[in-house]
Amino acid sequence: MADPLFPRLALIGIGLIGASIALAARRAGVVGEIAIHTRSPATLKRAEELGLGDVYCSTAVEAVKDADCVIVCVPVGACEGVAIEIGPHLKTGAVISDVGSVKAAVIRAMAPHLPPTVHFIPGHPLAGTEHSGPDAGFAELFQNRWTVLTPAPDVDSEAVARFTAFWRALGANVEAMSAEHHDLVLAITSHLPHLIAYNIVGTAADLESGLRSEVLKFSASGFRDFTRIAASDPTMWRDVFLNNKDAVLEMLGRFNEDLALLTRAIRNGDGDTLFDLFTRTRAIRRSIIAIGQDTAAPDFGRRDHKPAE
Amino acid sequence: MADPLFPRLALIGIGLIGASIALAARRAGVVGEIAIHTRSPATLKRAEELGLGDVYCSTAVEAVKDADCVIVCVPVGACEGVAIEIGPHLKTGAVISDVGSVKAAVIRAMAPHLPPTVHFIPGHPLAGTEHSGPDAGFAELFQNRWTVLTPAPDVDSEAVARFTAFWRALGANVEAMSAEHHDLVLAITSHLPHLIAYNIVGTAADLESGLRSEVLKFSASGFRDFTRIAASDPTMWRDVFLNNKDAVLEMLGRFNEDLALLTRAIRNGDGDTLFDLFTRTRAIRRSIIAIGQDTAAPDFGRRDHKPAE
Repeated sequence: MADPLFPRLALIGIGLIGASIALAARRAGVVGEIAIHTRSPATLKRAEELGLGDVYCSTAVEAVKDADCVIVCVPVGACEGVAIEIGPHLKTGAVISDVGSVKAAVIRAMAPHLPPTVHFIPGHPLAGTEHSGPDAGFAELFQNRWTVLTPAPDVDSEAVARFTAFWRALGANVEAMSAEHHDLVLAITSHLPHLIAYNIVGTAADLESGLRSEVLKFSASGFRDFTRIAASDPTMWRDVFLNNKDAVLEMLGRFNEDLALLTRAIRNGDGDTLFDLFTRTRAIRRSIIAIGQDTAAPDFGRRDHKPAE
Repeated sequence: MADPLFPRLALIGIGLIGASIALAARRAGVVGEIAIHTRSPATLKRAEELGLGDVYCSTAVEAVKDADCVIVCVPVGACEGVAIEIGPHLKTGAVISDVGSVKAAVIRAMAPHLPPTVHFIPGHPLAGTEHSGPDAGFAELFQNRWTVLTPAPDVDSEAVARFTAFWRALGANVEAMSAEHHDLVLAITSHLPHLIAYNIVGTAADLESGLRSEVLKFSASGFRDFTRIAASDPTMWRDVFLNNKDAVLEMLGRFNEDLALLTRAIRNGDGDTLFDLFTRTRAIRRSIIAIGQDTAAPDFGRRDHKPAE
């Protein structure tokens, strides 16, 4: 076997993303030893039962000792505490990264606590499911998905190249951009859709109980897809909205303006405005299929019964 | 073979739903002859090429002649015109139905033009994909999906029983309720989710072009699921919103109130409010899985690569 990209990888946090990195990195043969720490003793024990790593550490300091690459896989709001704890113990020349869904706030929280002798390359794998915890991880999670890296312009380019190779080995497509740009793009592609899904499911949850039970029963007509999105990890998403506030509020403002126009069109019986919008949105869907981000196969909600081709 | 439930079935309109009814009814052996009419000669020709029926009629009057069951499968806004046209030519004792996503407005539009000698049993199969047209139809579409029937209380119970048996033979679960109740339930389970999806995709379509292309590129992070919903048939959905205005505006009002609270929580950095909502919505998801309306299998957006069980 060729020399691994990183002889020792440390994962701080071992939920869906951390566990998937462990499984994918092991399978790709790009790391030597995998050291795992997570705050909860029960979760650490579960990670060991699942055989996710080689060394299971009760402290983060112990996990990052001699590690050539450290990936912090905790909710955004917990990143600063981890940086404070591990900063003084990082190996010279190590790559340190994270997997948070917001980047500018994570950089503000972590960078001040990291020594100048390490290479800080913040990252965000655009992959996940609505499940969480180490049992939810699987090696294929990053396959053909984007991982966005947001290193500062002065970060060592060899370290960035090595960390890019690491993510590519895990199956990801890698793109670098500024943290601020990442946060704006994700606000509309991910954060706003999640917020809207949480909101509509919350509206349904508040219905009179008789009506609510029928909403569940007939949920296959559209609502169900929103409940899947709205089942994502509450801690993670709370932290996303608290830490990407400006971009989310900006996109929410645009969304509300558009919804006001749409509401007025319905109230006034203005079918042309509705038809024009519904035609434009269909074109967006075609663009997404054309660039390979989804397939044109119809989704009728039951993957066990597919229509014949 | 046993006697068919309906010796002659007439389908007026042959899009996704009409074509699927033709294929499913033929497969189930519950009809003798299938007569098809649709307004567009090109679509009628396509239906014939696909072999969806036995008789292809250039007028609706010709199709409904001697039909024991007539199902009007056209957008809600076109139902009144069809009823005016076919009303005087319906066979005594025939069942007449539709497949519209709103029911009270369809009844107001159609009932005045139907003779007292027929059994009017409005229906709504809660099934579909984001595709439309006769090529999109398939026999399994209604399997294990709900079809809601909304006959008036005085409609002949034997006719309702026969039509219920017809839909069950097509694989559907059948439930009867009042048209008004149907429209309220669907406003929250289907109409509002579609409206919100159309709106958010429209917001993205209006972004500056550089940002918009990145939104498409990184759409897998949540946005993509909304584009699928927002690719549904524009004519059908325009008519839904025009014809279920009151219930949609009511649910939209509740949605907006909730979104205002959520927006304020983000602006004020109120993490507890966000966390509480995100936990409640997760419980709704569990209820939907518990009643069998979806599976707990994780969806990570690529049905060709499933994680190991």
